Amino acid sequence: MTTKMRSEIAEQPAALRATLDALLPRVDEVKGLAGGARQLVFIARGTSDNAAVYGRYLIEAHAGRLSSLAAPSIATTYKRKLDLGGVLAVALSQSGRTEEIVETLAWAKDCGASTVAITNGGEESPLAQAADLALCTVAGEEKAVPATKTYTTQLAALAVLALGLGADVDADDLQRVPDAVEALIADPGDLDAVVDGLAEVSGVVVSGRGMAFSTALETALKLKEACYLHAMGLSYADLLHGPIAVVDESTPALLIAAGEGPTLQGTVALARRVTGAGASAFGVGGGDELAAASTAALNGPALPEWVAPMGLIIPGQLVTEALARRRGIDPDSPRGLNKVTQTD
Amino acid sequence: MTTKMRSEIAEQPAALRATLDALLPRVDEVKGLAGGARQLVFIARGTSDNAAVYGRYLIEAHAGRLSSLAAPSIATTYKRKLDLGGVLAVALSQSGRTEEIVETLAWAKDCGASTVAITNGGEESPLAQAADLALCTVAGEEKAVPATKTYTTQLAALAVLALGLGADVDADDLQRVPDAVEALIADPGDLDAVVDGLAEVSGVVVSGRGMAFSTALETALKLKEACYLHAMGLSYADLLHGPIAVVDESTPALLIAAGEGPTLQGTVALARRVTGAGASAFGVGGGDELAAASTAALNGPALPEWVAPMGLIIPGQLVTEALARRRGIDPDSPRGLNKVTQTD
Repeated sequence: MTTKMRSEIAEQPAALRATLDALLPRVDEVKGLAGGARQLVFIARGTSDNAAVYGRYLIEAHAGRLSSLAAPSIATTYKRKLDLGGVLAVALSQSGRTEEIVETLAWAKDCGASTVAITNGGEESPLAQAADLALCTVAGEEKAVPATKTYTTQLAALAVLALGLGADVDADDLQRVPDAVEALIADPGDLDAVVDGLAEVSGVVVSGRGMAFSTALETALKLKEACYLHAMGLSYADLLHGPIAVVDESTPALLIAAGEGPTLQGTVALARRVTGAGASAFGVGGGDELAAASTAALNGPALPEWVAPMGLIIPGQLVTEALARRRGIDPDSPRGLNKVTQTD
Repeated sequence: MTTKMRSEIAEQPAALRATLDALLPRVDEVKGLAGGARQLVFIARGTSDNAAVYGRYLIEAHAGRLSSLAAPSIATTYKRKLDLGGVLAVALSQSGRTEEIVETLAWAKDCGASTVAITNGGEESPLAQAADLALCTVAGEEKAVPATKTYTTQLAALAVLALGLGADVDADDLQRVPDAVEALIADPGDLDAVVDGLAEVSGVVVSGRGMAFSTALETALKLKEACYLHAMGLSYADLLHGPIAVVDESTPALLIAAGEGPTLQGTVALARRVTGAGASAFGVGGGDELAAASTAALNGPALPEWVAPMGLIIPGQLVTEALARRRGIDPDSPRGLNKVTQTD
């Protein structure tokens, strides 16, 4: 049986192509609205929050603007006004209908921010309607509860946003993403070994840093929501400040890095530390060096670091889908979750 | 046998009194340096990072300035300059000797920020030396690896910082903190029931929101580092966006709230949802209402919400120390950890 989640994983190359075709012509519009922004604040929850973490690192590292994630409770629970003049507020919601996110974006506008919505809910969604500019992803309807194609297309929209903010990157790299994702889905590496290694454990540590930190958080969220694993997503720096204590023979680590970039060496060193502690380290991406330091390895995309997260999540999605079935869970409908989450 | 951790938990009322005595007279100094700051950026790792989360909510909710946590890798790994004019950068490190934090604070100054250090390492520590203004906590030497008194005194220093930024709170509330902490250590509530409930599990969810979110993160970190538990610290809003799926009969939840404030009702509702799913909910603070909705309850401090986190962490510290011993772990020296963590 093919699950909806597995089908939607396979739809990502087409969803990415359609989203880039729709949004790349809008770079100048982004520039007009946001080019003068001093800094960015992202507003999101769940998977969209993990996408925002990519946006935050991308904008700081490549577009030179201070970026951060909003605490929605300041707007919705404490109802406190802040001075957001000069701020570009970017809200992400796959449905465009999570009230907390719509309300927090409206609060940001009221506080003086310029506003952008990134959503798969379309121009008519409440979030798109509330924003100065809406970047609508073209992922099509997503039926499985665990988000896949709505996540990777959010990353593509964030990359377009970065281009509008004058990021010091080669825009042509983006055109390589759909093919690289397609290649990775066709050949993800030793999936069976990783699924076997996670079949019986109750917890796993997922680590990446910098541009790959978002992938670690999103991989951990997938494993939590669809496999009920205690999965901790952490940068390797945070991991060493305490949580490393939980890593033992029964707690494997998934370690994620792009095939290039300044966080690769630290990830390789962490793999050696984890295997040295008697635990399994499963590498995701990171090229030959990370694979050699790992117990088993999954492939990463053949992409530059700044766009690599659009591919680096693929192995984690495939592992989640296969592991859920192995553990007797229907990944399309995990317990306790609905497709649109309402929080206030 | 009394562990060092247990002794240091008991030293917190005195450490808080000494820290407040040292720092309250310096409110005007903070005001002179930071009163004009448009926004704050906190720089920290591990336990200090959890203290920074308190600072972030406190400053946004009560001193009306946008606040966020820095991504140190932008400074140390990507080596990217940002425009931090008008920003107050606040670095926290118990030792004042974590190179990554010292380097990131120096980067912030170089980017145009005003700088404050909060450290127990003294005026001569590298972090204090690197800052425009050092707020040194007076916790005394901390010997157990899991931080306790250096954490609560960091919170006190952050409260002093908020006063310097003109927070809309009653400064006299701070003077009530040491006695409230002392009362809580003497009578934390049904500690045995909670330790029993956590003795055999592999994972636990720890949740709080707004001002109590920092306490949830810090309680989870303590349980990870000293009890090797897969402990997830989450706001209840984030919990509902996916991770709630891991909560089942074998995964209890620790739910934390001040006895007053706008996040109490949501925490009570979460306790009902958790027990409704067949899992144990252990309340921390939150008064009679949270206790009534919980499987077993630990007391919170008799303090207003804005200073409550200095007391709300006490039950979590006591549970961690007792649970570590129950699980055959020396809480003073967990595996894989040193007192001063170096990351780059």
